[in-house]
Amino acid sequence: MDEETRVRLEKMLDDIKALLSAGDSAGLADYAGQQHPADLAEAYSLLSDEDKRSLIRLLPSELAADIVEELDTEDQTELVTEIGTAKASGIIGAMESDDATDLLSELDEEQTEDILKKMGREEAQEFKELLSYEDDSSGGIMGTEYVALTPNMKVDYALDFIRRTGREAQTLNDIYVVDADERLVGVLSLRDIVVANPMLKVSEIMHRKVVKVGVGSDQEEAAQLFKKYGFSALPVVDEHDKLTGIITADDILHVVDEEATEDIQKMAGTLSSDETYMSTRTTKHWFNRVIWLAILFLADLSSGFIMKGFEESLEAVVSLTFFIPLLIGCGGNAGSQSSAIMIRSLALKEVHLKDGLKVIWKETRIGLLLGLVTGLAGIVLSFLIPHAGVNWLHMGITIGISMLFTVMIGSVAGAGLPIIAMHLNLDPAVIAGPLITTIVDALGLIIYFSTARMIIGL
Amino acid sequence: MDEETRVRLEKMLDDIKALLSAGDSAGLADYAGQQHPADLAEAYSLLSDEDKRSLIRLLPSELAADIVEELDTEDQTELVTEIGTAKASGIIGAMESDDATDLLSELDEEQTEDILKKMGREEAQEFKELLSYEDDSSGGIMGTEYVALTPNMKVDYALDFIRRTGREAQTLNDIYVVDADERLVGVLSLRDIVVANPMLKVSEIMHRKVVKVGVGSDQEEAAQLFKKYGFSALPVVDEHDKLTGIITADDILHVVDEEATEDIQKMAGTLSSDETYMSTRTTKHWFNRVIWLAILFLADLSSGFIMKGFEESLEAVVSLTFFIPLLIGCGGNAGSQSSAIMIRSLALKEVHLKDGLKVIWKETRIGLLLGLVTGLAGIVLSFLIPHAGVNWLHMGITIGISMLFTVMIGSVAGAGLPIIAMHLNLDPAVIAGPLITTIVDALGLIIYFSTARMIIGL
Repeated sequence: MDEETRVRLEKMLDDIKALLSAGDSAGLADYAGQQHPADLAEAYSLLSDEDKRSLIRLLPSELAADIVEELDTEDQTELVTEIGTAKASGIIGAMESDDATDLLSELDEEQTEDILKKMGREEAQEFKELLSYEDDSSGGIMGTEYVALTPNMKVDYALDFIRRTGREAQTLNDIYVVDADERLVGVLSLRDIVVANPMLKVSEIMHRKVVKVGVGSDQEEAAQLFKKYGFSALPVVDEHDKLTGIITADDILHVVDEEATEDIQKMAGTLSSDETYMSTRTTKHWFNRVIWLAILFLADLSSGFIMKGFEESLEAVVSLTFFIPLLIGCGGNAGSQSSAIMIRSLALKEVHLKDGLKVIWKETRIGLLLGLVTGLAGIVLSFLIPHAGVNWLHMGITIGISMLFTVMIGSVAGAGLPIIAMHLNLDPAVIAGPLITTIVDALGLIIYFSTARMIIGL
Repeated sequence: MDEETRVRLEKMLDDIKALLSAGDSAGLADYAGQQHPADLAEAYSLLSDEDKRSLIRLLPSELAADIVEELDTEDQTELVTEIGTAKASGIIGAMESDDATDLLSELDEEQTEDILKKMGREEAQEFKELLSYEDDSSGGIMGTEYVALTPNMKVDYALDFIRRTGREAQTLNDIYVVDADERLVGVLSLRDIVVANPMLKVSEIMHRKVVKVGVGSDQEEAAQLFKKYGFSALPVVDEHDKLTGIITADDILHVVDEEATEDIQKMAGTLSSDETYMSTRTTKHWFNRVIWLAILFLADLSSGFIMKGFEESLEAVVSLTFFIPLLIGCGGNAGSQSSAIMIRSLALKEVHLKDGLKVIWKETRIGLLLGLVTGLAGIVLSFLIPHAGVNWLHMGITIGISMLFTVMIGSVAGAGLPIIAMHLNLDPAVIAGPLITTIVDALGLIIYFSTARMIIGL
């Protein structure tokens, strides 16, 4: 936070505290109406628990909703419990429908029912519908604040209609046109309407090709469409092509963040979680991590068995063991690099399934170049460190060759396995860092001991 | 690609080919004008090289620009070289200024100069200014297509002004107000203007608190402001508070993707690259990866030296070596998990620097729970596998204890080191997966051999 922001925030805090202690609800409403909700929420988060409750109680629902929209889920649910369902119902009704739905889905079932009962019948019905969609579907992230015209409206009437109904709309860059059955038939912008001849019909100036997304489709599909077309909003339709909501660019920002987080979590070998780090309980964290850790434990056992198989070689030349962490470390690192790059490229659709063979060939060459460097370094290392009972050159060649092949295998497997996973309709991010490291460990050890047997003659 | 899209695309391809072979440039312009540029670009990418060139040559610059905007950098630069700087200059002039600047910055210096010379003086000057900003600064991603009113305009005049000048603006959700020195003094929406009394002045209805960003600020700062305030556009000002451009939500989508990619690349230990996987040359890939691989190679040497220090123990009980890959594997995996989670939480500002001690305490408990599971598994394992020359229980306790502590250290170091890095103003993503694995390897080995000495009495 820079100095200017800090000063402004402190001033705001002082103002709010003064108005609160005077119990001046009209003054508070005036004051809050002039601030940006995000700033107000920031000041709110610095108030004492008691002041927080009084502020929300004194503000009109409309303004309280602006603050609540900006809070973390955790703070939101806590607040609802404190202020009771009667006050909460008014505030949630005044929130943007997508934010309100997110909050309702986080509350206890009993609380949600209570709140819906206190709303108007139509409003409650709308929330019930919104709550029925999966969290990560297009229906789950859409809002219902949009303006819909009909094809036969005259342009001047449409403009007047927008004036009267558009105040709450999330965007006026895109205004939709629906027929008598509420089916989406066109789209136009406020700009189109403002510049058009007022006597024309909406159907004469609207664009009929509307890019849209199904209510049950994955949110990732909506994100891809946003990236491709550069929209400010995307309409969502049900199975009968009926307009049911819109997704705006700021919803998609959250989706993009969420999807990247999910990939990163999977790549690190943890179950993905949509809660924040601090709000997740220790035992939940443990559960998310222990499953992959156990799977990898079992996979790592193979390394032990491989070494047991070469027990005699190890007994003859204990020096062999010194290079094991280095060897499997380098192979694993090369694998982590190429798998992370490949998984990200697949997620951003920069690499496609059909590129599989080209990728393998590219990684073979990259791996060869990387392996040559690490292999040579291994030979130099063997020269610098004296080994008991074995010729340094034999040892060096053993290390160099196995380093070369292990790093190459790491590069190729790191990029190739995610592609194979995608071919099998698995999420490529699951075949990531730790799993590849484990596979490369095992292969690296086999190469190492086999080479040692041949070169050193064990 | 679903069936419907495929059919539509094939139909479009046939239409374009027919118009091309007839050389019907007017028909092509008509046809292209009715398609969405993103669809048109997809069809374009499927044409033969010859057809691509004819299409771009036959289309008016305005429509050609729409297609070129959607292409990859690689395809763009190739096209410019093929069609020559004269035609390219017209097309680039018709592109959105941020896309045009990105393309110009990718061309050879000579090509860029040639193209700028063929533009009007004012336009060329504007591009020179845009090119002077860093790629990843707010100035580097902003566009210059916005509408700016002055405070003294009457509302009805302003609406007329927007009609005349707003056609090319990237958004009309936000319209800016500047004073005589072009300093940003207010903001309002087209909706505000449409619903206001036509006789009022702009200054009477505009919002005076404008959230803005400096032209030299990091693009990440702009992204954070978008996420906080949910804008559709963000104004960019120079050091004199003069309005110089706007950043729109779709620019930010790319920034968010880019930043996540950068973090993933750093976490996997590769230098970050802003090119796609396929368009990056093998030697460039090698260079991006070899530096970290070499650093980690050196760090991994420590493991070798530690083992050399315990040479006598290893010679006495070769069985000790069998568990080394398993032990350092588990520690490294626990470290990768917590570092990935922590780096992502820091990037999304879900965890703040001041939470450092809480995080360490939380990770200590998570690590203890994870370590107990893997430690017990280690003891069971020792029971199942016979060891020459050592009591299975002694061996089991050795493995169990070192597993417990290594996994705990992995968890705590994985979360703690990125936080320390941030305290030191380093990028936390650099202290990631591979580096933490290496550190945990070394510590794990020391714990393991020390425990073995004590318990087994070597």
